[in-house]
Amino acid sequence: MAEDGQQPPDSELGPRRGPASQQDMRRQNLALVMHTVAAAHPLSRADVAGRTGLTRTAVSSLVDELIGGGLLLEGELERSGRVGRPGRALVLNDSGPAGLGLEIGVGHLSACVLDLRGEVRVELHRPAPNSSRPAEQTLAELAALATEAEQQAVVLGLRVVGRVLAVPGSVPLDDPGRHVEHAPNLGWHQVDVHSGWPGPGVAPAVENEANLGALAELWQGVGKGTFVHVSAGEGIGGALVLDGRLFRGVQGFAGELGHLTVRPDGRLCSCGARGCLEPYAGLAAVLHASGLAEELDGPASGQDIDAIGELARRAEAGHPTTTRALHHAGTALGTALAAAVNLIDPATLVLGGAYADLAHWLLPAMRAELAELIRVRPWPDDALRASPLARRGPVLGAALVTVRRLHTDPATLWLTEGA
Amino acid sequence: MAEDGQQPPDSELGPRRGPASQQDMRRQNLALVMHTVAAAHPLSRADVAGRTGLTRTAVSSLVDELIGGGLLLEGELERSGRVGRPGRALVLNDSGPAGLGLEIGVGHLSACVLDLRGEVRVELHRPAPNSSRPAEQTLAELAALATEAEQQAVVLGLRVVGRVLAVPGSVPLDDPGRHVEHAPNLGWHQVDVHSGWPGPGVAPAVENEANLGALAELWQGVGKGTFVHVSAGEGIGGALVLDGRLFRGVQGFAGELGHLTVRPDGRLCSCGARGCLEPYAGLAAVLHASGLAEELDGPASGQDIDAIGELARRAEAGHPTTTRALHHAGTALGTALAAAVNLIDPATLVLGGAYADLAHWLLPAMRAELAELIRVRPWPDDALRASPLARRGPVLGAALVTVRRLHTDPATLWLTEGA
Repeated sequence: MAEDGQQPPDSELGPRRGPASQQDMRRQNLALVMHTVAAAHPLSRADVAGRTGLTRTAVSSLVDELIGGGLLLEGELERSGRVGRPGRALVLNDSGPAGLGLEIGVGHLSACVLDLRGEVRVELHRPAPNSSRPAEQTLAELAALATEAEQQAVVLGLRVVGRVLAVPGSVPLDDPGRHVEHAPNLGWHQVDVHSGWPGPGVAPAVENEANLGALAELWQGVGKGTFVHVSAGEGIGGALVLDGRLFRGVQGFAGELGHLTVRPDGRLCSCGARGCLEPYAGLAAVLHASGLAEELDGPASGQDIDAIGELARRAEAGHPTTTRALHHAGTALGTALAAAVNLIDPATLVLGGAYADLAHWLLPAMRAELAELIRVRPWPDDALRASPLARRGPVLGAALVTVRRLHTDPATLWLTEGA
Repeated sequence: MAEDGQQPPDSELGPRRGPASQQDMRRQNLALVMHTVAAAHPLSRADVAGRTGLTRTAVSSLVDELIGGGLLLEGELERSGRVGRPGRALVLNDSGPAGLGLEIGVGHLSACVLDLRGEVRVELHRPAPNSSRPAEQTLAELAALATEAEQQAVVLGLRVVGRVLAVPGSVPLDDPGRHVEHAPNLGWHQVDVHSGWPGPGVAPAVENEANLGALAELWQGVGKGTFVHVSAGEGIGGALVLDGRLFRGVQGFAGELGHLTVRPDGRLCSCGARGCLEPYAGLAAVLHASGLAEELDGPASGQDIDAIGELARRAEAGHPTTTRALHHAGTALGTALAAAVNLIDPATLVLGGAYADLAHWLLPAMRAELAELIRVRPWPDDALRASPLARRGPVLGAALVTVRRLHTDPATLWLTEGA
């Protein structure tokens, strides 16, 4: 699993463990050049030297290495009004290394390939009855979808160098990226994705969907620096991004917003406690309170696009039971998020996943509750925002993990391929 | 203000901003040697080379520089049973650079000096009516106390090289260490400690007392890695330490446990909201509920040692109103801390400040409430601990900031003194 966007494994206070070496310096400086070009391309070699403080000789050597690795391209600069002959410009290679994102939902499989600029170049989506069949069948179909996406990428001149899979479940911290510990809505328990991966492609690193949704928001959405991401999928997913890094907590449970107590001694939650957020604001609760759950075939699901769409259509039409259900869910979300603001002091709160599609009806009640409960610090209404990525967040985040790793530590490409 | 124990000012995801240099390498390696000796002294030069991976020649040059700066001493190793002639051993210098900690409470002033080993060498405590006099008078008396502590340190061969002041108030993030924004219990608003510092000594860097209490717990107490520290002083102080660093949030309000909603639509809090933790578990609330507030002269204060001591004596004697008041406060603390566990997933919760003196009666109700509300992750009873430092935490933390900075970045000593 990439280290980008995650806390380092050894971040106890104190200096680095090993001596600093020339090799470390080279690697740091490659990262500095790559990051500089990624942040403001096109740039000339002279621009890069100016922005990094490196000498032009050093920049040239580093740039040549990045071009050789397929990470940067150098071409003619656009003509500008400036005096002097046009230089040659460095840009991110849009037909070089790329990231593959995969997703397993209760009712679908998704895949996407993003290039080094973060642009979506391939996107596939298939309905699939993942909650009612063995994990092996789901993984076999996913592997086929992954192969199809990689083949389409090759046609575009792209080369997938990293694969990450978003799952609606928990991934153990001590064996990151290899297996799913528990995914109740898929009926998965201890599924080893790596050993069970049906060849010939490379198995993806596994990560929780809420975490990847939050990272996507950091990299391409409205989350900046320090924020709390709350999303509705199966259950309520929460994730914390602190100072630009995903914060997992010591056992991987950080951001468990769904089990924050919002109504002491209130409704019984599936976890066994009373008064958690989930029985008040989970999509199952909203569908039930709106009367929609009873009208749909079988149990309504947060991944069920028809149910969410129908909820939004009824709210749009002013259906009073539906708007009331969304208002009450918004108030409960506000109570839980007020606790998150008082504890973490984030810059923003981001409402993602299926909640983003219902934001119009959730946000007013959420904002009213936040204003009521947050008094000791300023809290502007617009610090709570709906995600522009909505339900695409997790699969985009999965692909972006690789893209961002190449931006922040390009040498990882050589190290991985040499291994 | 020292950077030790705080998030770096620029911690957005991405590589370092400037190029890596030989000077950076030297500084990193000095830190590596200092940290290695601090963690396991006495060590020989050969031990240091073995533990760090640096060459013996490099270690000798780095060690000589640290000895020259007064940070390390080299003497005969104790005779051991091992074969071979005794080597010479490196230890932290206990008569070298030292840290001064200062504290302004509502009813007292404190000062202490800690040597490089973290040992308390000077400790002064004076009753002082700080809440009922102008800030200038308090600062004048504090400056005199600081001078007295530094003079006593000189007699012991110590040289104070860093000064930090703990205040029961907020310190702005954009001008760290220079002024107090708001300290309601002192009646302070916008007090510039640096400009207002009465000569001839050096003005201290200012920091919030709850943050320093948490750092003291990290460095000398029972907090390790990632934990939440809750203390009772004036109001309820909370602080988050994440991966060994103090986490302040984007506006410096992180850890505001006192204003977490524990009883929706409950008691009115001084902040204007209803149901906050403070009117249920703040010391004023406990003193009131126990009936003790009415018996004491004037308003009872969390810094009032007699009130806390009397509360403990009555609880010890089985006084039912007192034990009931502490039980209810413990339950409310448990409700708020359960939210912190669900959000942050810490390794431990630390009960500090005056709460530590009452831990015997608070902990059972806290543990019962935590067990009731934390269901989705394991939470052992002993993950909640009373601080061994209790009310001394903030002033010890203030002095330790300097000591830890010298351990983790000893070159700061030359840079500071050369400035």
